[in-house]
Amino acid sequence: MKFARLGPIGQETPTVLVEGTYYDLSEITSDINGTFLSTGGPAAAVAALRASKLPELKQADALRIGAPIARPSAVICIGMNYAAHAAESGALPPEIPIMFLKTPNTVVGPNDTVEIPPTSIKTDWEVELGVVIGRRAAYLASPADSIGHIAGFVTANDLSERDFQMNASGGQWSKGKCAPGFNPTGPWLVTPDEVDYQNLALRSWVNGEPRQDSTTADQIFSVDFVIWHLSQYLTLEPGDLVLTGTPEGVALSGRFPYLAAGDTCEVEIAGLGRQRQNFVPTATERHHHE
Amino acid sequence: MKFARLGPIGQETPTVLVEGTYYDLSEITSDINGTFLSTGGPAAAVAALRASKLPELKQADALRIGAPIARPSAVICIGMNYAAHAAESGALPPEIPIMFLKTPNTVVGPNDTVEIPPTSIKTDWEVELGVVIGRRAAYLASPADSIGHIAGFVTANDLSERDFQMNASGGQWSKGKCAPGFNPTGPWLVTPDEVDYQNLALRSWVNGEPRQDSTTADQIFSVDFVIWHLSQYLTLEPGDLVLTGTPEGVALSGRFPYLAAGDTCEVEIAGLGRQRQNFVPTATERHHHE
Repeated sequence: MKFARLGPIGQETPTVLVEGTYYDLSEITSDINGTFLSTGGPAAAVAALRASKLPELKQADALRIGAPIARPSAVICIGMNYAAHAAESGALPPEIPIMFLKTPNTVVGPNDTVEIPPTSIKTDWEVELGVVIGRRAAYLASPADSIGHIAGFVTANDLSERDFQMNASGGQWSKGKCAPGFNPTGPWLVTPDEVDYQNLALRSWVNGEPRQDSTTADQIFSVDFVIWHLSQYLTLEPGDLVLTGTPEGVALSGRFPYLAAGDTCEVEIAGLGRQRQNFVPTATERHHHE
Repeated sequence: MKFARLGPIGQETPTVLVEGTYYDLSEITSDINGTFLSTGGPAAAVAALRASKLPELKQADALRIGAPIARPSAVICIGMNYAAHAAESGALPPEIPIMFLKTPNTVVGPNDTVEIPPTSIKTDWEVELGVVIGRRAAYLASPADSIGHIAGFVTANDLSERDFQMNASGGQWSKGKCAPGFNPTGPWLVTPDEVDYQNLALRSWVNGEPRQDSTTADQIFSVDFVIWHLSQYLTLEPGDLVLTGTPEGVALSGRFPYLAAGDTCEVEIAGLGRQRQNFVPTATERHHHE
């Protein structure tokens, strides 16, 4: 099952996507949010679909694709979760998951235009497998319990400003992770039955040239381990987004230039869909130059 | 003007507090949230109060005091913002604000019981001046613009698990900042006209013994500077909570023991009200021991 949200920013219609057709879920839920995911919404959607009770969303192809989930209560990120990426960042592989946070208002649609922050000199891409929480998770007993708390998976781009991240906050990374639009998410929320989540190809491109090309099989800490581990330190809420780290091939490695206005970034995870962002100056910058 | 939310968790009634009497704001707003704060809610509350249109909330003293704001979209924290606290933590005063995040679900009432996490060995207190955002702030032009984006101020306790913070996340602090209940907030949201916010006494006690005793006059980065600065890196949303750092006198200094089940912590900021938390084992721990 694939869920998607289509329409203008803040007015997205919740849908389920089946063989290229979007069906409108508005009669079942106001949004693809924590309440929907934790109270049997996906099962209700399947039942309604099978009973042919869902209307087709007309002219869906003309609509903007939003993030496939409403703004989460938290975006929890794992750093350095692929050994080759840790190496290109100049770090040893971690012995315990490194956790940091992005602000939830960074979550935007997969193809939304992204503004380069006015003082940015090192805007970087990071394709990541995103896990959407389906059921509140606190102090889980073992990693085997994690899957029961997962609603599904998404493609995410954990956009990062490396100068802000490394040099502007005493070593605390979040200041380089929260610029407006720095978390393109989607296009789809795909339920676990359709995803072999520890064996997914994930790739990125800048201006059509390949950058990252790896697989979630190379994660140091598996999805099940990460969700269980995080639940020992905080409560994961339904609808929350957990980003599980990025593989090698980012600009931080020194092998590629950072992103600049005019560039296009694409990221894709097999089965979870592809994103494409155009990068532009911030509106305030454009205003200053006019 | 002082706003408060009274009632059971998740069912708090929004109120305004005047000379010891709580007036029910339910006719004006469903909650003290970003929409209320950014769309003239406080002014509407004053007008209704003056017109004697607000009913008194009966038996208010029997009700739990909730956090004075609904769950924010983000809790942004400043680290090491008092020179003496930086010193007791073994660090130099920062040259630029250190930013990290707490998950918004840590925000609880000022007197709610707090569970010591099952694997905690170093749970610590931090009295902090909290700033509540009243108007979206992105790329503010100067620190003088900050006050126009502030809805008011709160007392906050930025509870921290130092082992999780320092040793369990490769140096990224958030893992030690997000345990359930780790952000007691309130009792009141006090509007800026009533607060000389750069000259407030802030104090804490454990089991009645004094711990922190300082003033916001000693902040390295002022409130106005911090809000302007943060807005260069992320968009602050109406209703968001910014914690502006803690002064010296925490357990991390080595001068005092960490918190344990059975302890009581009190924190107070002059004019913003006092909190009192009892610390207990986590429910899961209690269950294991039964």
